[in-house]
Amino acid sequence: MKISHYLFSALLLFSGQVSAQCLTRGTGDMGIVIERADGSVQVVDRRAHKALFRIEGLGDLSHASAVYSPDERYAYVFGRDGGLTRLDILCGTITHRIVQGGNSIGGAISQDGNLIAVSNYEPGGVKIFSASDLSLVADIPATPVNSEKRAKTVGLVDAPGQRFVFSLYDTGETWIVDMSDPTKPQIHKYEHIGQQPYDGLITKDGRYYIAGLFGQDGLALLDMWHPEQGTRLILEDYGKGEQKLPVYKMPHLEGWAMAGNRAFLPGVGHHQVLVVERGDWKPVGKIPVYGQPVFVMARPDGRQIWVNFAFPNNDTIQVIDTETLQVIKTLKPGKGALHMEFAPRGEEVWISIRDRNEIQVYDTRSLEMTHSLPAASPSGIFFTARAHTTGL
Amino acid sequence: MKISHYLFSALLLFSGQVSAQCLTRGTGDMGIVIERADGSVQVVDRRAHKALFRIEGLGDLSHASAVYSPDERYAYVFGRDGGLTRLDILCGTITHRIVQGGNSIGGAISQDGNLIAVSNYEPGGVKIFSASDLSLVADIPATPVNSEKRAKTVGLVDAPGQRFVFSLYDTGETWIVDMSDPTKPQIHKYEHIGQQPYDGLITKDGRYYIAGLFGQDGLALLDMWHPEQGTRLILEDYGKGEQKLPVYKMPHLEGWAMAGNRAFLPGVGHHQVLVVERGDWKPVGKIPVYGQPVFVMARPDGRQIWVNFAFPNNDTIQVIDTETLQVIKTLKPGKGALHMEFAPRGEEVWISIRDRNEIQVYDTRSLEMTHSLPAASPSGIFFTARAHTTGL
Repeated sequence: MKISHYLFSALLLFSGQVSAQCLTRGTGDMGIVIERADGSVQVVDRRAHKALFRIEGLGDLSHASAVYSPDERYAYVFGRDGGLTRLDILCGTITHRIVQGGNSIGGAISQDGNLIAVSNYEPGGVKIFSASDLSLVADIPATPVNSEKRAKTVGLVDAPGQRFVFSLYDTGETWIVDMSDPTKPQIHKYEHIGQQPYDGLITKDGRYYIAGLFGQDGLALLDMWHPEQGTRLILEDYGKGEQKLPVYKMPHLEGWAMAGNRAFLPGVGHHQVLVVERGDWKPVGKIPVYGQPVFVMARPDGRQIWVNFAFPNNDTIQVIDTETLQVIKTLKPGKGALHMEFAPRGEEVWISIRDRNEIQVYDTRSLEMTHSLPAASPSGIFFTARAHTTGL
Repeated sequence: MKISHYLFSALLLFSGQVSAQCLTRGTGDMGIVIERADGSVQVVDRRAHKALFRIEGLGDLSHASAVYSPDERYAYVFGRDGGLTRLDILCGTITHRIVQGGNSIGGAISQDGNLIAVSNYEPGGVKIFSASDLSLVADIPATPVNSEKRAKTVGLVDAPGQRFVFSLYDTGETWIVDMSDPTKPQIHKYEHIGQQPYDGLITKDGRYYIAGLFGQDGLALLDMWHPEQGTRLILEDYGKGEQKLPVYKMPHLEGWAMAGNRAFLPGVGHHQVLVVERGDWKPVGKIPVYGQPVFVMARPDGRQIWVNFAFPNNDTIQVIDTETLQVIKTLKPGKGALHMEFAPRGEEVWISIRDRNEIQVYDTRSLEMTHSLPAASPSGIFFTARAHTTGL
């Protein structure tokens, strides 16, 4: 009787606190790695340099991205096939999964962590879901292009004040959606921002939203502190019109790096990284690099820029000193060096090497590889520290 | 037999996974509140606005501060009495506690999270401990002042490259300790930085270390990207010499705010917040405020500055717009408004109101109070997101 009483108490406590598979641990040093060929995700411990769980069944994960809940427990993975999957990284499980659109291109989490927004190509528009159960909160269709089709939505980011910002490819617009009252989304539309915006970014302080333009030179800038001023064109020499080389891959705008008061960005169609002064957004330098840059990432302290490149140069990573603007190291990690993610304080960077089926970890001071982890065709790497940063 | 086998298995699993009191949850939205009169700490859930645990027995917590492990599970609390306490915030327990010096004034955690440094008045110097068990790793005595006494150490911060930086009050020095090899600390000393440095800060990117000077006007600046250049005096009008009012409390230098390319700092002995351009560090403006500022904190997006004040004006908080440099709101939260802590994305700020025995939570957009929590003489509030930021 005594034994069964203890047993009962122990099991009750046990099941009340935590299921058998879940971990009791801090989540600040965790992350996920997208294994795009398999539609799976690895949950990793970035300090131990090891995988904790492998979660399957996430659908088409090409160009997948992810955001985190404020508690850093739940990852929301946006798949290319319109899938939106909520993962519990402490338990290694899928808690919710929906296919919310036909062709999706990224998402964002609201400032307060309660809303998840996804931008869709088909049908063109943005849908906003409850972060707790992925139930639909708002459906915001894009501007119609013709009787059958709406504009593709791109460059979706979160902004302070419980807002989301995105652009409309076919109609050349940027929209701000204020979700302060989730039952009454307030939409502000900016038309004629430029031709065919294809991606967007917001600076870490949430002030400047910048849309890349596929159909013309330059970028469209919206000062979120002064939305009443509308957008303006910056860097008019930047982009397609000036290109000397065929563009193998349009650079990701999320690959912009801010270091101090300067932005470093991929030169479209050039083997160059451009250096731009923030504020007046004038170019102040061009750094010759090994190929066409895809991601241009600042080490969190702003002292280095790490760059990867489009095919056929995607076996190489270069490191630039932000003070001398010189390439200080050329690394050859292997074919398919697709994505880089820094530890939040910058001591390490993780790099996905798709064709070697591994993650390589580099010490950012010695610039030497210190660890590697197996992963099936890895692409995006997302650490939980993103939970605390606007626009990531 | 069967029952006892199950019992054994269940207990084994149970104790292996988690103790009865521990929580299985993400740690990204947690924090601690110092209750200095009681020598206790509350562990809080910042999104639920509630306490999870109360932990007692931390000694003298006047001027206590705290840092977090990279996984955001362990808080290291630095007490004024030289106590160093390691808390497990998932279990609400003290895992380790030592009294490492006689009179302590703050600490820091290394970039990789493996080392905890504490600066001491008595005996003057810095001690460095293992973050996992608080065992002593390095003891760095300060410069002797006479045969019995060593210089007080102040303004201790972490810097990229596994370094710590601090200043010596009595001898006017700044030291950099490189702990890349924990068995062989490399110490670089800068003498004659100015008279009586009393506190220090490092910019969030880890580039500029700035020491406040008690014995003269101005501040000592060390560019950590160019330590070979040594320190130089900036803001020569800043400080004691110029004061028009008695100084009730020297402002905390950690209370500097950086917003965009500007720093906002307390005017010593003046009812002013100074505005300074980063880079050349020249003053560009003075904002009249309600009292002598103590903490000058930027909302994470840099759009607002929140200021509290020294006695007898410590019942008031003012909010400044960083663009217009105008005070946009004067709040009267109550006597003893000692400390402010922003949610990492800035939607809320928590304020300790000592004499009301409560924490007040404000929406930073409406500037209205939305929640309050009981706390015994609360002072410092520290959210786990600090784990990911240099110098906090």
